[in-house]
Amino acid sequence: MSAYAARLVALRAQLAKDGLDGFVVPLTDEYMSEYVGAYAQRLAWLTGFQGSAGSAVVLADSAAIFTDGRYTLQVREQVSADDWSYVAVPASNVARWLGEHAPAGGRIGYDPWLHTSAWVADARAALAARGAELVAVARNPLDAVWSDRPAPSTAVLTVQDDVHAGLGSAAKRAQIADWLSETKADAVVLTALDSIAWTLNLRGSDVAHTPVALAYAIVDADGTADLFVAPEKVTDAVRQHLGNAIRLHPRDAFAGALHGFSGKRIAADPERAVSAIFDSLTAGGATVLPLRDPVVLAKAIKNPVETAGHRSASARDGAAVARFLRWVEAEAPKGGLSELSCVDRLQAFREETGVLLDTSFDTISATGAHGASPHYHSTPESNAPLELGQLYLVDSGGQYADGTTDLTRVLPIGTPTDEMRDRFTRVLKGHIALATAVFPAGTTGGQLDSFARAPLWQIGLDYAHGTGHGVGAYLSVHEGPQRIAPPTYPGGGAAEPLRAGMILSNEPGYYKAGEYGIRIENLLLVEERPFAHGATMLGFETLTFCPIERSLIVAEMLSPAERAWLDAYHARVVEVIGGYLDADERAWLAEKCAPIA
Amino acid sequence: MSAYAARLVALRAQLAKDGLDGFVVPLTDEYMSEYVGAYAQRLAWLTGFQGSAGSAVVLADSAAIFTDGRYTLQVREQVSADDWSYVAVPASNVARWLGEHAPAGGRIGYDPWLHTSAWVADARAALAARGAELVAVARNPLDAVWSDRPAPSTAVLTVQDDVHAGLGSAAKRAQIADWLSETKADAVVLTALDSIAWTLNLRGSDVAHTPVALAYAIVDADGTADLFVAPEKVTDAVRQHLGNAIRLHPRDAFAGALHGFSGKRIAADPERAVSAIFDSLTAGGATVLPLRDPVVLAKAIKNPVETAGHRSASARDGAAVARFLRWVEAEAPKGGLSELSCVDRLQAFREETGVLLDTSFDTISATGAHGASPHYHSTPESNAPLELGQLYLVDSGGQYADGTTDLTRVLPIGTPTDEMRDRFTRVLKGHIALATAVFPAGTTGGQLDSFARAPLWQIGLDYAHGTGHGVGAYLSVHEGPQRIAPPTYPGGGAAEPLRAGMILSNEPGYYKAGEYGIRIENLLLVEERPFAHGATMLGFETLTFCPIERSLIVAEMLSPAERAWLDAYHARVVEVIGGYLDADERAWLAEKCAPIA
Repeated sequence: MSAYAARLVALRAQLAKDGLDGFVVPLTDEYMSEYVGAYAQRLAWLTGFQGSAGSAVVLADSAAIFTDGRYTLQVREQVSADDWSYVAVPASNVARWLGEHAPAGGRIGYDPWLHTSAWVADARAALAARGAELVAVARNPLDAVWSDRPAPSTAVLTVQDDVHAGLGSAAKRAQIADWLSETKADAVVLTALDSIAWTLNLRGSDVAHTPVALAYAIVDADGTADLFVAPEKVTDAVRQHLGNAIRLHPRDAFAGALHGFSGKRIAADPERAVSAIFDSLTAGGATVLPLRDPVVLAKAIKNPVETAGHRSASARDGAAVARFLRWVEAEAPKGGLSELSCVDRLQAFREETGVLLDTSFDTISATGAHGASPHYHSTPESNAPLELGQLYLVDSGGQYADGTTDLTRVLPIGTPTDEMRDRFTRVLKGHIALATAVFPAGTTGGQLDSFARAPLWQIGLDYAHGTGHGVGAYLSVHEGPQRIAPPTYPGGGAAEPLRAGMILSNEPGYYKAGEYGIRIENLLLVEERPFAHGATMLGFETLTFCPIERSLIVAEMLSPAERAWLDAYHARVVEVIGGYLDADERAWLAEKCAPIA
Repeated sequence: MSAYAARLVALRAQLAKDGLDGFVVPLTDEYMSEYVGAYAQRLAWLTGFQGSAGSAVVLADSAAIFTDGRYTLQVREQVSADDWSYVAVPASNVARWLGEHAPAGGRIGYDPWLHTSAWVADARAALAARGAELVAVARNPLDAVWSDRPAPSTAVLTVQDDVHAGLGSAAKRAQIADWLSETKADAVVLTALDSIAWTLNLRGSDVAHTPVALAYAIVDADGTADLFVAPEKVTDAVRQHLGNAIRLHPRDAFAGALHGFSGKRIAADPERAVSAIFDSLTAGGATVLPLRDPVVLAKAIKNPVETAGHRSASARDGAAVARFLRWVEAEAPKGGLSELSCVDRLQAFREETGVLLDTSFDTISATGAHGASPHYHSTPESNAPLELGQLYLVDSGGQYADGTTDLTRVLPIGTPTDEMRDRFTRVLKGHIALATAVFPAGTTGGQLDSFARAPLWQIGLDYAHGTGHGVGAYLSVHEGPQRIAPPTYPGGGAAEPLRAGMILSNEPGYYKAGEYGIRIENLLLVEERPFAHGATMLGFETLTFCPIERSLIVAEMLSPAERAWLDAYHARVVEVIGGYLDADERAWLAEKCAPIA
């Protein structure tokens, strides 16, 4: 019996003990985080599945794993068909499947700290139609049998200085207090880890690549707050920074504290807070106001200190990537480079800045056909050499105290084909169309997304991902609420109006399965554009400076305005990152950034 | 006491008799129609308000009229401030205002044949918060005091021949029956007048410019139907066309018939059917399925006979408008033309086709500053002479048995200014961008709208209306469900995926208050665009052919691709409409349509 099969047997035994006929295992943590820590990787432990999104249901005599189109192949490789059936999302989903497969009259368990209330309502209704019941468990039965479960990180908190934050925590909490007053609420529960980090000007190291700490916070109408966090994370410096207005509690006191708001009006975010929080508040006699976390928008609109910091971080980081591109360009044709050796070399260039705190995500270093998977990550097994005739795609970013970066560039190894150059030029035209867009207040990312796709659409092509995501200020590299994507993109971010101060990526691409991938990614800052006749529109300042590979550009396909943008951009690249380079590198940069022929 | 003040007194007396403390007067009919017949113009009768959207509430000691930004000035001119307070929508609305002003414990009446269920739920909740009650009236108290209320039209029905409809009524009803079977419903109530007309291949003359008849229909799962229509409208020819599968009833038997579906599952459209219909079905023991009218999408996707018919109607109608433009161009500089004399002359050119059945809406004939109001209609009072230095805008369409047309052109009277030419060229660039868009299946009008606005956005300008509406096949000139507009546009049409066979207008514009208006409108047909590599995208075939005024175009502002589009379009104009013109007109047309310099 394989280790995974044994785990399934153990879980079923525990379910029987607990009086359950089934159990739902999502790939989430109690914060609805994008990146889930090892301690919460229950789905991977149970099934062996290593993808970033999925869920499972275990019944007494069957078990199913649910994944979307990105993982159709991977789930079959990693998860045994002997024990598991594969279910494709969104054609089906956990609730619908339970409605079809749960035993009539059965009791199906779920951990209320791992699901939203909307999911619970949906699953409960599906089960009710079958006469079965959805049961919140007090203790997760999987955790009961996961004997070697990693402990959560014990890393200490650090203070995000006002010199980078631009606004002190007291002022931020005063803004939240104003919102509570407008909303006629007594307090708001903050569960999104980056909302807590932003509000308290704290950072942590509990989540890969995202400088946040596992915690909860409740901000009161008087601007004081309760912070629930493991005591060993709180250094003297942090204690001093937080001051008297922040009351400290152990993280596991949070659930109990939610019962203490009898008669109060408490705001909680139904997309970001799990159902257990709503249940506990209600059980304690509070009136729960299901409202979006007020920090989400406040955090997305960067203040002038944050935008200035981002410009510095971008310049430094763009220089590191430019040095890396020069190195790849020189070394790759000789042979001997691989995707993983490139990851290491890029890391080294970033570390040479002296101020790198982390990468902002696992670097995507993909050559040839690997580039055609937008979310490819090389492993020792998949690691491929960079070979002549390939396109090499590198999507990476750094975490710096003054900003979080994210950029993608593509280099040809040797001579690119005409088709590659045509596709690259179309992606560039889309990138420029978005970078130069001007639009009125109230415009959403869903209204701009088509600009980036139009040059590909014209020849019957497209790319199957969004065009732009929000980016944090030394926080999450994927930050809401805004997004540039088709209106049906999951999560609703495409319906969020863009506002001056928001940062977004601009990353159209093109992917030819089995052959190559192209993506051109810079970050954009939304800025106001006043006009002489009195109107004020919005537009973008490009924040990222790093050469866009000229040998992949068909100059004749660019309009005069597009050429002008490209030449002006490259002139700025020289100005912005030149100072970080040595003389040889600067000479190389000047050539890469010369006006396009 | 004015006539309107007396009417208000009479209504209040009736409310007292009926035991009501207030009453809501919307500007709708029992079909939620866009154009409301004289018999249902209750708001105008009570208040004097002549706008196309609004509502009123009458309480014992106060009365309020609700209008949106378009009518802020007009309502103050037409409705007496002595009796009425003015309330701006959407800052407030009837439900919210009732929640603030209704007498505690009061009974506020509404006519359930004039409101959707969603409105009723909203108003009921707002009143409940005040301890007041929303009461459905059995007889409209306003009708009780409206002594000279016009009778509904008695015009007879006509048959829309298969040669134009392209699909017989039996086949259409079989499609609806298939939908009922999929939906597990026993019948569907059709209330939208154009849905009934399309399904039964009937036309009428009860609504201005829209060839529909006041009726209701219920289509059964076996493909038969009950039609509720005034018996005097049914000629022998119509009776023969309808055959045995259609059971005829007087229109006033409809309400009673809704009580006869005990135990059945009946579909009704919550946006198109009034609350009385839902109430009656439920009271009669039916299970109501609140689903979109299945005809809405079927009707929007034109069949090949309908699209061929539209091409013929467009050619004939475009020729009539071209002849009119030539006449204006020749006559206007001499002086003596007015907005209304132009309306008459254009009508005459259309009538000379010999097959005009109606205009598809009241012609917008607007010169100079009048053009800056997108929905301006000239009256004998506002009628203005066409004068040198003005732009003259004409937006009009015809109803023909083979198609419904809608196009807008602008002519300068004398020499246009550089600014006018710049703005016109930007509007043209937006028009071309939309006309040449290529996009994947699933794309919505909300994703394309920005293409048409971008050239104006770039200089801080915009237009405050949608870019495109659906158009019927000898039916409504404004037809859903699709629309090209920003995603927040009321009605949700911008979220509807475009499908091959849909017809939409393409009408970007620019309006300079007090000076001039510009709009360039053609109709588009959504068509499939197959590509050699296997993908099939969607694109547009332009259906409307009529010269676009060359003296308003700054050729240097057009890209090579835009010039090519314009020249190819004008070449097609000559081909398509030339045959309808005499030799002099053809010579003129050739000049207007020569390649742009």
